[in-house]
Amino acid sequence: MNTPATVGLIQEAVTADSNANIEHAIERVRDAASRGAQIISLQELFNAPYFCQSQTAERFDLAEPIPGPAVERMQKVAEELEVVLIVPIFERQAAGVYRNSAAVVDADGSLLGVYRKMHIPDDPLFYEKYYFTPGDSHISHTDEHKGANGFRVWNTRYAKIGVLICWDQWYPEAARINALLGAEILFYPTAIGWHPAEKAEFGAAQVDAWRTAQRAHAIANGVFVAAANRVGHEDEKGTNGIEFFGHSFICDPFGRILTEAGTDPAVLVATCDRALIEDTRRNWPFLRDRRIDAYGPILNRYIG
Amino acid sequence: MNTPATVGLIQEAVTADSNANIEHAIERVRDAASRGAQIISLQELFNAPYFCQSQTAERFDLAEPIPGPAVERMQKVAEELEVVLIVPIFERQAAGVYRNSAAVVDADGSLLGVYRKMHIPDDPLFYEKYYFTPGDSHISHTDEHKGANGFRVWNTRYAKIGVLICWDQWYPEAARINALLGAEILFYPTAIGWHPAEKAEFGAAQVDAWRTAQRAHAIANGVFVAAANRVGHEDEKGTNGIEFFGHSFICDPFGRILTEAGTDPAVLVATCDRALIEDTRRNWPFLRDRRIDAYGPILNRYIG
Repeated sequence: MNTPATVGLIQEAVTADSNANIEHAIERVRDAASRGAQIISLQELFNAPYFCQSQTAERFDLAEPIPGPAVERMQKVAEELEVVLIVPIFERQAAGVYRNSAAVVDADGSLLGVYRKMHIPDDPLFYEKYYFTPGDSHISHTDEHKGANGFRVWNTRYAKIGVLICWDQWYPEAARINALLGAEILFYPTAIGWHPAEKAEFGAAQVDAWRTAQRAHAIANGVFVAAANRVGHEDEKGTNGIEFFGHSFICDPFGRILTEAGTDPAVLVATCDRALIEDTRRNWPFLRDRRIDAYGPILNRYIG
Repeated sequence: MNTPATVGLIQEAVTADSNANIEHAIERVRDAASRGAQIISLQELFNAPYFCQSQTAERFDLAEPIPGPAVERMQKVAEELEVVLIVPIFERQAAGVYRNSAAVVDADGSLLGVYRKMHIPDDPLFYEKYYFTPGDSHISHTDEHKGANGFRVWNTRYAKIGVLICWDQWYPEAARINALLGAEILFYPTAIGWHPAEKAEFGAAQVDAWRTAQRAHAIANGVFVAAANRVGHEDEKGTNGIEFFGHSFICDPFGRILTEAGTDPAVLVATCDRALIEDTRRNWPFLRDRRIDAYGPILNRYIG
């Protein structure tokens, strides 16, 4: 139960060609696996350009079911390489119900389940509330119901993992619930970038805030955190587009960075010594002292 | 409502002489006020040595009521200098009910209320569960009830502030509830230090984790954070004592450090531009997208 688990993250630029993106990602997954990675996460919406830069109805055509061609292709890769894969795609659940999802595939190629992004942003060039139905609030902490909604964790072959997606990473509540459900490693497939006009003034602070928020989840909960972001400039007609800022990283339960990328494509691999979870939580036993009798107000949107 | 508020933090070493500690702290408060500070926080248990290093019944004699001599003395200083003061002391509420508390004094010298530490640690040399009855879970977000328990915030003359104490700083729930109650600046009077035997291996990582967790509260909630820690080595017979590590700091809603101390005594002063709260929350509107329908599991101690 405390054997180390080696994590791989794929940080990539994408093109408009979904099949090419998938084949390219598979090469990267093979690279990570060859370097020992056992649980590998792709970035948010890994096989598509970041299409949310405008509200365009035709772009719903990019969605596909889970399971469906993209996930099934990755299931074969997972089985062949005996790796756990986190496969984030644009999911078509039903006509008019599209999700920003991540399929979790075990090392035998079986589909363990789907996480559907719970916190949906909506900002200039990030029109996600148009495209994505939020994940539902039902909690299933068993693996019985494939496709169950809500926060959940999975017992994979190599570790118990939680998956959250991008905007979720700003919410301590999401990380905490994953930790309470038993997650040892939290994965954050991501697509975050700079508005080119803001980059000079705010770019460095944005990256640091992003990294800090997630390192804090590791510290507060005594878990490993692995965040896979995309890179590359993606255009949108009539705008300056978005420059995805990369900086994918893996950190330990103390918030210490184990490996980190820059703004180029990268394959990160780091071994997570799960015994460190026990050790960290014994020395700083935050979970012991939580005041669950006093946290009720957190269920309000605002109180003041 | 968006006028800047200037914050002062006192980072000090203490002696066994409570009166000397108080007079020394007042000198420091005068220094901070002369540099423009309007809201000034002393460190946790500011007028006492960190007495929790052993379980010794006589040490309950260090406690005094609120209001009582120490707080009343500081109320006079607040009135004279027209500053808000956060005065953390060992409170005797009743025989057998002692608290790790902070009195909040407005700039006219009036006692606005008391915060009683909600999360109580207990580790080698930090035997706080022996000394401190935890703060109760009742929430009062009005200023009507002096001494009301639970998480609360105060409308002071210069800003709406929340006060949390030391171990509370590891709990995102506490920071979140303070922000939902309307806090603009979160204060963390603190007494955290190194076990001398661990310092070489873990010292730097501990300081960084401490700072990171609190900067993340600023980021997640779009508030300023001000943490006042003590410094100095305090002995305890039969042990190596504790070396309090200082590193008090003030950061903005983006988590950017405005001013930071080292391990020497220090008086920190920084102006908090409250307009930045509005600005930050408009650009990264985390509070808008909270999934309060799905956070119920956070009220469990553990689920997995």
